[in-house]
Amino acid sequence: MKKHNFSAGPSILAPEVIENTAKAVMDLNGIGLSVMELSHRGKDFQAVMDETVALFKELLNIPEGYKVLFMGGGASLQFCMVPYNLHKKKAAYLETGVWAKKAAKEAKFFGDVETVASSADKNFNYIPKGFTIPADADYFHITTNNTIYGTEIHEDMDSPVPLVADMSSDIFSRPIDVSKYGLIYGGAQKNLGPAGVTFVIVREDLLGKNERAIPTMLNYQTHIDEGSMFNTPPCLPIYTCMETLRWIKKLGGVAKMQQINEAKAKVLYDEIERNELFNGTAEKDSRSLMNICFVMKDEYKELEQEYLSFATSKGMVGLKGHRSVGGFRASTYNAMPIESVQALVETMQEFEKTHKK
Amino acid sequence: MKKHNFSAGPSILAPEVIENTAKAVMDLNGIGLSVMELSHRGKDFQAVMDETVALFKELLNIPEGYKVLFMGGGASLQFCMVPYNLHKKKAAYLETGVWAKKAAKEAKFFGDVETVASSADKNFNYIPKGFTIPADADYFHITTNNTIYGTEIHEDMDSPVPLVADMSSDIFSRPIDVSKYGLIYGGAQKNLGPAGVTFVIVREDLLGKNERAIPTMLNYQTHIDEGSMFNTPPCLPIYTCMETLRWIKKLGGVAKMQQINEAKAKVLYDEIERNELFNGTAEKDSRSLMNICFVMKDEYKELEQEYLSFATSKGMVGLKGHRSVGGFRASTYNAMPIESVQALVETMQEFEKTHKK
Repeated sequence: MKKHNFSAGPSILAPEVIENTAKAVMDLNGIGLSVMELSHRGKDFQAVMDETVALFKELLNIPEGYKVLFMGGGASLQFCMVPYNLHKKKAAYLETGVWAKKAAKEAKFFGDVETVASSADKNFNYIPKGFTIPADADYFHITTNNTIYGTEIHEDMDSPVPLVADMSSDIFSRPIDVSKYGLIYGGAQKNLGPAGVTFVIVREDLLGKNERAIPTMLNYQTHIDEGSMFNTPPCLPIYTCMETLRWIKKLGGVAKMQQINEAKAKVLYDEIERNELFNGTAEKDSRSLMNICFVMKDEYKELEQEYLSFATSKGMVGLKGHRSVGGFRASTYNAMPIESVQALVETMQEFEKTHKK
Repeated sequence: MKKHNFSAGPSILAPEVIENTAKAVMDLNGIGLSVMELSHRGKDFQAVMDETVALFKELLNIPEGYKVLFMGGGASLQFCMVPYNLHKKKAAYLETGVWAKKAAKEAKFFGDVETVASSADKNFNYIPKGFTIPADADYFHITTNNTIYGTEIHEDMDSPVPLVADMSSDIFSRPIDVSKYGLIYGGAQKNLGPAGVTFVIVREDLLGKNERAIPTMLNYQTHIDEGSMFNTPPCLPIYTCMETLRWIKKLGGVAKMQQINEAKAKVLYDEIERNELFNGTAEKDSRSLMNICFVMKDEYKELEQEYLSFATSKGMVGLKGHRSVGGFRASTYNAMPIESVQALVETMQEFEKTHKK
């Protein structure tokens, strides 16, 4: 039976990305060696690194003055690397969920942290608006997509101080104006590749401005100076990212990706609104195109487990909502085909027919 | 033409490890999903993590009280994590090469560092002996195998303070007495798997003993408490490590691995000693079983490039020595078959016949 992979991350990758990765694991470009067993400093892997960086720059239209880096440790390691490098006296954070809180927690190891606004009052089901970013902050940190709650910041905001964004779960889902950001980072395992590599896009002139002694591996300048090869980078995960970026480019780039994502999300959000059994959890203008969270209406609440079993029997995978929201979460990342969203909608309609009171 | 992969790292992996990884990239255990697109918290990946930890414990005979962790960032990130967690007043380091020096450099961010002994006087071509480990150090750090210089510490030394070992390039190459170590770490990309995952074996009672505030991701206790799943681990690299450990177990374990490694190294060291054109660079009792470094004798020095081209034409890969030693380096990690070492020896013999003065 065909699986429809709605996992929140690690998550679905395009079939050709998976196939090409398997081929490169067996033999990279016919050189007779696996991509796993090559020197990272040899020309074969250097070509992979160079193309991956070039595709980042091309697809996101990254301006001069920014560097694209790859490292290990996940976005969670960036939670402390960002303040290690950028925090001087005070950092400002937007609190839109658990991951945003975790990021802010690490900044507190380095000094003052101001929480500019929070949506904790409604279990993070909206993106706060109308807040003022303090002009005396060293940077302002946002989490653009909140996987657990299904909320997303859809525009590139203006900030009087360097804007730092965790885009782990919506990078490459839409065009972004990189020039509005000081630093963008994220784990690969949603829209890019397998877990094990983290990307960082950083405006180089922001670095080296504080007095702190920074351990070598935690200093962005180290990775800039060595082209992400100060030590051995996660070669295989980077290879898969390159394949995903090739696939996005072939598809028409991030503007086309956004159209596809909007079309997919509309199919599911429309059904959630129409269906008598379900309710969306996020406020409408904060709804994510990447993670679509919904629950059963109060009068059907006792059917949640039954619906989940039914959907699973129809091939849906990873649909259970995070425990802090409950219900269901359909992650509709870039690689998710609209056919899988339609298959999910069919299960909702079929379940409605048989269970509507 | 068959390639003989002598790369220093990332390096050769066993053919069945490569094949099984490619299969799991396409479909893990027939579940219909790639190992790259599964939730790390689902039962399918949890089984991978559990088996990998269990095989570490079984193959290395790890005693109670130790934890096995997997994280990203490479051994270079451990260079600062070790002192972050263990340095109180003074740490002691054995200086056996560039990597040992890099490790010590990071400890200096956290306090005093004593270099107990060094082989810098002879370009690190031997392992220092007869040194005294200071009893007032918080820990003593060694690099058991020095890839660049082809030297190796072959025994588990007694230390009056916790012994910390970077075993990136010789883990699983021989039985070790883990109880003699406080902490063992290493990147996977030599004897274990692809680049992108780092293992840590740590005696849990050493942790939490200093006053330092440790950022969450840099605190070993975080990873212990969450079973290496505080954040998304590098799932695919861990999968490949599991396949390598299965292969080692099937082969007969690390004692058998050591026999095989000794036999392989003997073939090449014997030829280096016999051949009129070549000289080994490491002192005999410090010679590594993992990286075998040799140069051309002075009277043949001008033939180095020609020999390298000849060997390359016969399928040898990654044979060029590190620039700080020159000449040649044959890395004969666990997965290197003796047939490849014999093929290398044949090129040396053939070259001797045609070039001996």
